[in-house]
Amino acid sequence: MEAAAATDEKLGLTPWLTFRIPSSFRKLVDKLKAITWKLKKIAEDDPRRIRHSLKVGLALTVASISYYVNPFFSGLGASTMWAVLTVVVVMEYTAGATLSKGLNRAFATLLAGAVGVGAHRLAALAGEEWKPVFLSLFVFLLAAMATFSRFVPEIKARYDYGVLIFIMTFSLVAVSGYRVEELIQLAHQRLSTVAIGVAACLAISIFVFPVWAGEDLHNLVASNLDKQAAFLEGVGKEYFEQKLANYKNLEGASFLTSYKTALNSKVIEDSLANFARWEPGHGRFGFRHPWKQYLKICALTRQCACSIDSLNTFISNQEKTQVVSDPEFQQNIRTACSVMSSESGKTLAELAGAIREMRSPFAAAGHLINATSMESSVKTMAPSQSATLSEVLFYATTVNLLLEVVRKVRRLLDAVEELASIAEFKRPEQAKSAAVKRAVEGESSPHVVVDMRG
Amino acid sequence: MEAAAATDEKLGLTPWLTFRIPSSFRKLVDKLKAITWKLKKIAEDDPRRIRHSLKVGLALTVASISYYVNPFFSGLGASTMWAVLTVVVVMEYTAGATLSKGLNRAFATLLAGAVGVGAHRLAALAGEEWKPVFLSLFVFLLAAMATFSRFVPEIKARYDYGVLIFIMTFSLVAVSGYRVEELIQLAHQRLSTVAIGVAACLAISIFVFPVWAGEDLHNLVASNLDKQAAFLEGVGKEYFEQKLANYKNLEGASFLTSYKTALNSKVIEDSLANFARWEPGHGRFGFRHPWKQYLKICALTRQCACSIDSLNTFISNQEKTQVVSDPEFQQNIRTACSVMSSESGKTLAELAGAIREMRSPFAAAGHLINATSMESSVKTMAPSQSATLSEVLFYATTVNLLLEVVRKVRRLLDAVEELASIAEFKRPEQAKSAAVKRAVEGESSPHVVVDMRG
Repeated sequence: MEAAAATDEKLGLTPWLTFRIPSSFRKLVDKLKAITWKLKKIAEDDPRRIRHSLKVGLALTVASISYYVNPFFSGLGASTMWAVLTVVVVMEYTAGATLSKGLNRAFATLLAGAVGVGAHRLAALAGEEWKPVFLSLFVFLLAAMATFSRFVPEIKARYDYGVLIFIMTFSLVAVSGYRVEELIQLAHQRLSTVAIGVAACLAISIFVFPVWAGEDLHNLVASNLDKQAAFLEGVGKEYFEQKLANYKNLEGASFLTSYKTALNSKVIEDSLANFARWEPGHGRFGFRHPWKQYLKICALTRQCACSIDSLNTFISNQEKTQVVSDPEFQQNIRTACSVMSSESGKTLAELAGAIREMRSPFAAAGHLINATSMESSVKTMAPSQSATLSEVLFYATTVNLLLEVVRKVRRLLDAVEELASIAEFKRPEQAKSAAVKRAVEGESSPHVVVDMRG
Repeated sequence: MEAAAATDEKLGLTPWLTFRIPSSFRKLVDKLKAITWKLKKIAEDDPRRIRHSLKVGLALTVASISYYVNPFFSGLGASTMWAVLTVVVVMEYTAGATLSKGLNRAFATLLAGAVGVGAHRLAALAGEEWKPVFLSLFVFLLAAMATFSRFVPEIKARYDYGVLIFIMTFSLVAVSGYRVEELIQLAHQRLSTVAIGVAACLAISIFVFPVWAGEDLHNLVASNLDKQAAFLEGVGKEYFEQKLANYKNLEGASFLTSYKTALNSKVIEDSLANFARWEPGHGRFGFRHPWKQYLKICALTRQCACSIDSLNTFISNQEKTQVVSDPEFQQNIRTACSVMSSESGKTLAELAGAIREMRSPFAAAGHLINATSMESSVKTMAPSQSATLSEVLFYATTVNLLLEVVRKVRRLLDAVEELASIAEFKRPEQAKSAAVKRAVEGESSPHVVVDMRG
């Protein structure tokens, strides 16, 4: 230490500095490492994010390069900035969102330009002196009315951005100049550049590694169902089926918490469905794919998750206080619960698989029947005299909560079957032959039963 | 009919036309009536919406009038449009949202302008010929990196708009011209106009009938708690307490559905809390009011609503199948349930009142104790031999679901007490003297117990 201090003095550094620099430097390095790790994780969670970032860069570069090389663009002069501006605000993550924003922007600009020119003509009737007064009045009235229209839920959901662009363009046109001829030329220029910007965005978001809102919604619905299925199958197998299983021991199992994501995904689902409606047909989805039915399934999935949550909270809160006083009764109830839970889980897994593979959920009804068939038998299981009251109460509630889950699963089955029929998913025969084909080709298809004798 | 047809022929109208015009006209009138009614309802639901629309109109008119009358503005020339554009996009419903967007826009423009000028200088080093190439490269890289940063949740939540404006301004600066001197002048102009636009928006949204996100969040939290309270008090009084009450008869009671709004209000709450953090101190709220604690209460409220939902669904699904076979047992259980439900409801109502009046929820603990004291007694209520199994199962589950609700209420009480201590709400003595003052002044204060001997 002394030697080090001596060296420092020789170098003219105070010891304070020598000891501070490395430590704060290390902190900085740690912080940078943490940030890098975080960014890496964000990229790995969904590699399409990297692609999207590059696409935005590409779209912008295309728009700016055009400015340098294209004579048409140079002719448009200062309006070129509208192409750049349009690209920045219109380019969204999913193709549907880009389409929605792009079309909203293009049509709102067109409409506002026309209304603006009309307002100029109208105000001109009052004479040159009063023109600014009338124009200001028009801006006030139209802006106030258009802003109010944004509170209408239907407009908010689909045309919010268009209304905003309408207000903006109208105000700009109203303010921007005096002579109508100039205005028309300006409006024409601006519309062309906005159209070029929108076209560039649409082309890139539809043809270069497209991210479809519809496909995301489709997969989200299936994965939410899968998570509920994982909970029910997990609890059925690892808790109810095991004689001495303790719920506490399951702690840390991912299925105990993963089902909760469905509870808070309403907003994502709504916006995906909203954007999906703007998308052209792509891959397995037609233009008029019934996205609304997906929202119905989402709502039922959330209700199912809520029932599962009650079951989960109840067992984890109450189970530790239980004493086994009537082993036979307990064993019977647990076996029944295991069947109800596992079979409901299998039903949901089949529904998820059916959605994913766009086929009819033909194996789901069978599993659901297995689950519901327990209801009548479990209701006749009487405890013996040795059973403690608290034990009876615990299992009674557990069974009732499970039955509630089974009820929700039945409604989900109905909704998915409705989807399969509206969206014309593959019927059993078609699905079977497809499954056979896949099996021959060596792919695995966990939820499809290949019955060659059928 | 014949006479009418004859008249039509005289007039040269085909019967088809005469009968179509009035009917389609009536349809149009009906449609207009429906739309007017809808708009009226939107305005009545929250009269601040009308005021907001007028405020936007005002802000825009101010920005456009400046263009006509202010010599400073005229000097800025074409840049004026940036003031109009800024007003349109920055003016949001709540003051916090306007602040967030305005500050994001101002700082992002400043930063992007500086970086843009730097990029120009750097690219110029490569010679005039290569400059566009390097500038395009910079646009590509910065746009891609900035776009990727928008996937980081922390940036998405608070600076999303700023990043967007950064990309836009940087690209515009990079594309817009060649000479750095011109650029600096342009950047200066643009920054001034953006600043003017932001200042106009902030002034109007903070000083003219301000809508505070924080206040909205505060009221939303209280009203969500009130709705849960209404359910518990309603069911306690009108179902459990009545000997022969049938759950089906309650149908149509608003408290049976209103609690559900809390289940889906997470996004609104999150965004209000996010905007509230940007707001300066206002009315009863300081600048560093603990908005995060409100989100904690919101999360617990949602969990409570989920438990209440289980209880509600269970009773309404199961109750119709019940037969009374052991009236005494049933009466005892129902009385206990009534106490648990009503007293939990009173606890929540007191919590809502305490938040609303910003005082300590001193009466809540007493109600909660009344509710929890039932737990031990209800667990010893044994049914007689005459009780049917299904009756016992039904009441066992009901009691357990209610106990789950009580547990959630206890966590809510803890969270509200924590809020009261962090936010330095009035303590009991202060609150009591305030209540006395109100009582003297003739105001009603339903949830405050004025104990003059205390």
